[in-house]
Amino acid sequence: MRSIRPIQRLVDQLEGLPGIGPKTAQRLAYYMLRFPQDRLERFAEAVERLKKDTKMCERCFNVDEESPCRICSDRGRNSSQICVVETPLDLLALERSDGYTGVYHVLHGVINPLNNIGPNDIYLPQLLKRIKEEQVDELIIATNPSMEGEATAMYIADKVKEMGEKVRVTRIGRGLPTGADLEYADDTTLSRAMEGRKEME
Amino acid sequence: MRSIRPIQRLVDQLEGLPGIGPKTAQRLAYYMLRFPQDRLERFAEAVERLKKDTKMCERCFNVDEESPCRICSDRGRNSSQICVVETPLDLLALERSDGYTGVYHVLHGVINPLNNIGPNDIYLPQLLKRIKEEQVDELIIATNPSMEGEATAMYIADKVKEMGEKVRVTRIGRGLPTGADLEYADDTTLSRAMEGRKEME
Repeated sequence: MRSIRPIQRLVDQLEGLPGIGPKTAQRLAYYMLRFPQDRLERFAEAVERLKKDTKMCERCFNVDEESPCRICSDRGRNSSQICVVETPLDLLALERSDGYTGVYHVLHGVINPLNNIGPNDIYLPQLLKRIKEEQVDELIIATNPSMEGEATAMYIADKVKEMGEKVRVTRIGRGLPTGADLEYADDTTLSRAMEGRKEME
Repeated sequence: MRSIRPIQRLVDQLEGLPGIGPKTAQRLAYYMLRFPQDRLERFAEAVERLKKDTKMCERCFNVDEESPCRICSDRGRNSSQICVVETPLDLLALERSDGYTGVYHVLHGVINPLNNIGPNDIYLPQLLKRIKEEQVDELIIATNPSMEGEATAMYIADKVKEMGEKVRVTRIGRGLPTGADLEYADDTTLSRAMEGRKEME
């Protein structure tokens, strides 16, 4: 039987999401057929407005409703301390752990030569510019404790040293098991890791 | 940190889907932030049009673009043979297995007293009406081989017997392991089950 177009169109979109295969996509689409139309409309609107109603912070590249983001514009935060994370979800995880009062810089990725992602393909030049222009005392590198995350951390540390800026570069404490995903760490582990950060030499 | 509303709105919708928890919903929403706007718009449209562009077949209650559905209006199909399934996805699975040339009846559920679903809460009265009004030679009951599926099959067989119609009532062959889901069975198992159907007494 050839496919039912309105259902197939949704299946195709759902299949484009990570972790959702063809079977699951089909199941979800048929499940959604049972929703009332106004629920489907709210869903559609949420998808359609997602990017329109969000901005990327011009300073730290976090995603928020306004730019600069609420963290960058919060005068209670210590802007001389920058925590570098891979993704906005990592930032959210650290915020939830509730131990950090500095600001952030979101790289939106890591250096990954195998996938052809170099330092200029992530928001790393912007970070170096910030270090040059802003009054930064400490740079906490909180990329994931994976191969790429470590390599990116090393690269940043080297670059900052080259620049000759008087910035203390630290790496988030290895309370996190190697290969784990920062986003899924529990709050205590994240707090510990924040406390246990150490100088990079 | 309070949540970012446009993202939270999408997270709420995604969380309403089966098998998607809060963490996954958040991941998906942030993943979708990287889509170009036109892709989000196609996605939104697929959600919004899903029900508008589909109809429930007035005869067999399958979901299709027109009513009667393409199976009911296909004159090459044997309309005196009705296969009863729980959901449109079960129908699709049987169509894929490619051994069946009759028509269908989709119940959209099973009798489930624990969830307060009785015979009149699914499309069962409509099935009995079809048996009375149409020229039916065989009724193949292909509900899932679960507790509720078996109970529903028994209920239908009893009802048809009560009606005194000269209809052969068969149950899909138990090539399927008990408790399994019809939708996920492989094509050969489904074909075998179709062939191995047996009289209900």
